[in-house]
Amino acid sequence: MQPAQHALDEAVRLVPLGEGWHAGATQPAYANMAGPFGGVTAAALLNAVLVDPRRLADPIALTVNFCGAIADGEFEIETKLQRGGRTTQHWSMELKQKGVVCTTASAVCGARKPVWSHYPVKGPTAPPRETVAEMSKTGRPEWTRRYSFRFVEGDLDGYPRSDGRILSPRSLAWIEDAPARPLDFLSLAALSDAFFVRIMHARGTFQPMATVSLTTYFHVGGDELAAAGATPLIGEADAAIFHNGFADQTCALWTPDGRLVANGVQITWYKE
Amino acid sequence: MQPAQHALDEAVRLVPLGEGWHAGATQPAYANMAGPFGGVTAAALLNAVLVDPRRLADPIALTVNFCGAIADGEFEIETKLQRGGRTTQHWSMELKQKGVVCTTASAVCGARKPVWSHYPVKGPTAPPRETVAEMSKTGRPEWTRRYSFRFVEGDLDGYPRSDGRILSPRSLAWIEDAPARPLDFLSLAALSDAFFVRIMHARGTFQPMATVSLTTYFHVGGDELAAAGATPLIGEADAAIFHNGFADQTCALWTPDGRLVANGVQITWYKE
Repeated sequence: MQPAQHALDEAVRLVPLGEGWHAGATQPAYANMAGPFGGVTAAALLNAVLVDPRRLADPIALTVNFCGAIADGEFEIETKLQRGGRTTQHWSMELKQKGVVCTTASAVCGARKPVWSHYPVKGPTAPPRETVAEMSKTGRPEWTRRYSFRFVEGDLDGYPRSDGRILSPRSLAWIEDAPARPLDFLSLAALSDAFFVRIMHARGTFQPMATVSLTTYFHVGGDELAAAGATPLIGEADAAIFHNGFADQTCALWTPDGRLVANGVQITWYKE
Repeated sequence: MQPAQHALDEAVRLVPLGEGWHAGATQPAYANMAGPFGGVTAAALLNAVLVDPRRLADPIALTVNFCGAIADGEFEIETKLQRGGRTTQHWSMELKQKGVVCTTASAVCGARKPVWSHYPVKGPTAPPRETVAEMSKTGRPEWTRRYSFRFVEGDLDGYPRSDGRILSPRSLAWIEDAPARPLDFLSLAALSDAFFVRIMHARGTFQPMATVSLTTYFHVGGDELAAAGATPLIGEADAAIFHNGFADQTCALWTPDGRLVANGVQITWYKE
């Protein structure tokens, strides 16, 4: 008997319809407040590149623009190989529902070579994962149950709150797929959006908010990810500015031994 | 007599050819080692959105993917309004030469409102601009002469060097257009790519290297930029990882009184 597929694999599963053309569907397991968790949409868009037979190398960069709400149900992804060189391939993707663009994206694949490398930023120190309490999922959207969050700093325990206090937007947490799943570019793409929108931490209010655009850089080869296996990661998220309805957000993900595997930024919208 | 146009305005000037279709040309004033300075390409792509009569709001986010070399000479930019809502508009752009895609990009425009704002990150402290020496442009590409760089930390004075030392990838500098030009989204888009590729600072070697993808977030409204005028900015650039041929890079730009006006990331390629 084949082991049951991980919910993430089900959520990013694509059925080929033609060259650069795939069908997929949102999954209740990754439901957010309305529509799917954006990280899994990012992973599905990346998957359209990963499964493309024209792809020559591992992904290096992924940008996802959340143009409009995605309804629960089927979608199609159109993938265009914009330019391919010996070193890099550039891709554009569009996710549509009933012919309407819901999400656009671009990805860069790049051939890594064992050349000069340098790691000037050390990973943050965190207490052992086992000593940090798991975040309660009570009252949270369904997708949060697909992850383990163990907040070292900047948890959401008091959320929502109306005490008017402004707290630090920074979070540090042990984070991983639940149940555990070997790391790959799909899970990294989703994990890079798994930290909550920073206004929830800083301001604590329950209000309309959404990720508008997300960029993730991958800093490992597929072989290195395979060797890392199903390890928890230490993730850091922060924000520098909340200005008149838009806020930035940074994210970095490290292995337990301090290797940065992905980092990136997003710009989020909030209503009031 | 009309005052002479600033070189940046000349470099991003677009001639309309139809809806979402413009012609432009590279300018010798912004020449890089080969082809144009990427920041001015980013600005030209953004300008295709800024001049579009369908645009409803200021730009919030810009991602530019440098797919292939841009030859000196004419180019065309195709602009597609992917999705427009009350709050945000999503755009995709392609820069082509002789029908070949050289650069792809996406932009988000967003309507800001005077809502809750918060600025948790303070700008870096720097000595007064006048006390910091101007970077020498001798032996540097032509585009560097279109900027004033006054490095507080992490200058390029010893570049290139072959002493084998690994220095910090971080730079802090006073930076502005030269001659001075009132800030707008075009100049911010270009300035966000004006910091040198971090490997030049960290490793110091002269070698093949290029920006592969660039994302910039704007944190000001056009009215705020207009009020800021032709101010110098304090810019910070850094990198967290150089791994097997690709490195990340962050950039943040502040006004002299510590207001973050733009920040972003890029992923760069290096050969050996």
